[in-house]
Amino acid sequence: MASFKKFRAGPKFKLSGVDPAATPFSSGGDDAQREQLDTLAIELDRLQNVLHAEGRRKLLLVLQGLDTSGKDGTIRWVFSRTSPLGVKVTAFKAPTEEERARDFLWRCHAVVPRAGEITVWNRSHYEDVLVPVVEGWIDKDQTRQRYAQINDFERLLTQTGTVIVKCMLHISKQEQRVRLQERVDQPDKHWKFSLDDLAVRKKWDAYQAAYEKALTATSTDDAPWYVIPADSKHHRNLMIAGLLVKTLKDMKLRVPPADPALKGLVVE
Amino acid sequence: MASFKKFRAGPKFKLSGVDPAATPFSSGGDDAQREQLDTLAIELDRLQNVLHAEGRRKLLLVLQGLDTSGKDGTIRWVFSRTSPLGVKVTAFKAPTEEERARDFLWRCHAVVPRAGEITVWNRSHYEDVLVPVVEGWIDKDQTRQRYAQINDFERLLTQTGTVIVKCMLHISKQEQRVRLQERVDQPDKHWKFSLDDLAVRKKWDAYQAAYEKALTATSTDDAPWYVIPADSKHHRNLMIAGLLVKTLKDMKLRVPPADPALKGLVVE
Repeated sequence: MASFKKFRAGPKFKLSGVDPAATPFSSGGDDAQREQLDTLAIELDRLQNVLHAEGRRKLLLVLQGLDTSGKDGTIRWVFSRTSPLGVKVTAFKAPTEEERARDFLWRCHAVVPRAGEITVWNRSHYEDVLVPVVEGWIDKDQTRQRYAQINDFERLLTQTGTVIVKCMLHISKQEQRVRLQERVDQPDKHWKFSLDDLAVRKKWDAYQAAYEKALTATSTDDAPWYVIPADSKHHRNLMIAGLLVKTLKDMKLRVPPADPALKGLVVE
Repeated sequence: MASFKKFRAGPKFKLSGVDPAATPFSSGGDDAQREQLDTLAIELDRLQNVLHAEGRRKLLLVLQGLDTSGKDGTIRWVFSRTSPLGVKVTAFKAPTEEERARDFLWRCHAVVPRAGEITVWNRSHYEDVLVPVVEGWIDKDQTRQRYAQINDFERLLTQTGTVIVKCMLHISKQEQRVRLQERVDQPDKHWKFSLDDLAVRKKWDAYQAAYEKALTATSTDDAPWYVIPADSKHHRNLMIAGLLVKTLKDMKLRVPPADPALKGLVVE
């Protein structure tokens, strides 16, 4: 079995060092990978139930990636076996006027997971160290300040019982072209497509650089970044499902102890 | 196929007229019912995707029922095939001080579904015409006023694009005894059990009467109440899944039309 550690961003991390087409966690074909994912998704459901029963700790999954990198698909398939009772998803869009009137972490703090819950952020506070950097709205000092603010915020969460897993879905420029073209060519997928996607695509290299810097600055022991090769959808799904299963197992979750007072009680 | 209409509460509705052990929507054994449910759950997922693509209307499922009637299990199984991206669950507990400082609909309004979403309320604003009625905290006039306020609130939601389906999970007193005793007898289920459940069980008849009155007063054409026989878990699940599939089909959902401007566009 491959190791997740190899895909963890460290202080000297280079995005170009990760092959978006790699499939280290499975050698099987499509069917085998689907089956492998289903087994992991069922295990994830079991572990989520214990997380809920324990009712003390929380799991936060942060998903980042360029357009078409598969954030929605990841959520759909990794949580294909878990109840919506225990998994909440927040999709962050461009900030509203209400949100821009506060600091950039305000809207995120409002939706951190409750005790016993898994929360998924589909995009996140990391958008605020990507878009403004590429567009030149903030300078280097301001960017560095935001990295530090993010690390402080995430430390607060981990110190108060939240385990944070951050995944960047890493696709190749060629694969993005194929996926965008698919959306254009299928009229029933036009609603997923925006001409803005093409404008962002033109800034490909700037986004890769912004991601590399952000991941290097914010991949901490408590809240590590994993770079997920994402050209293969099946493999992307099972790698993330596997990472979550491993993370939850490492938490050594326990159902609360029995209540001795209930021994022998008869319900009338 | 049995008709859902027969289980819809009308002006002369009697709760005692519905047999909690009825299984009108399936004659098969456990395996057949599981398979039937899975087919419905997959269809529900397909329809949820179109609801999301359309991005205009919303579906609100209100689940009510006494302890152990299976609200959590319903959510778990009916939505066993849908992505957490499109299904949000809110579990309403005893109101907090912040919530009690406002009207009883305030906390509900805050979590109505977004366009394109399915939202499930695990308990709801209906708790406020059950508990206070049984406990004698509000009198008949106040209760009638709340029914009218609920109908006004739900009319606002339906007039602004929300389709509301309300289900009361109807179990027998005997079946509740069995399920509570199970929780007592299995030490790893103690965390699900509270001695308060026994105190509420002692008020069984008062709760049946309060439910009957509330359902009669608030089952409207726009937001009807369905009484779901719930002694059989499998049948309960597939009846609700079937009701949701029918409801979404009746909405005649459509993916947004193709954008002619995208014709022939080549992604570079």
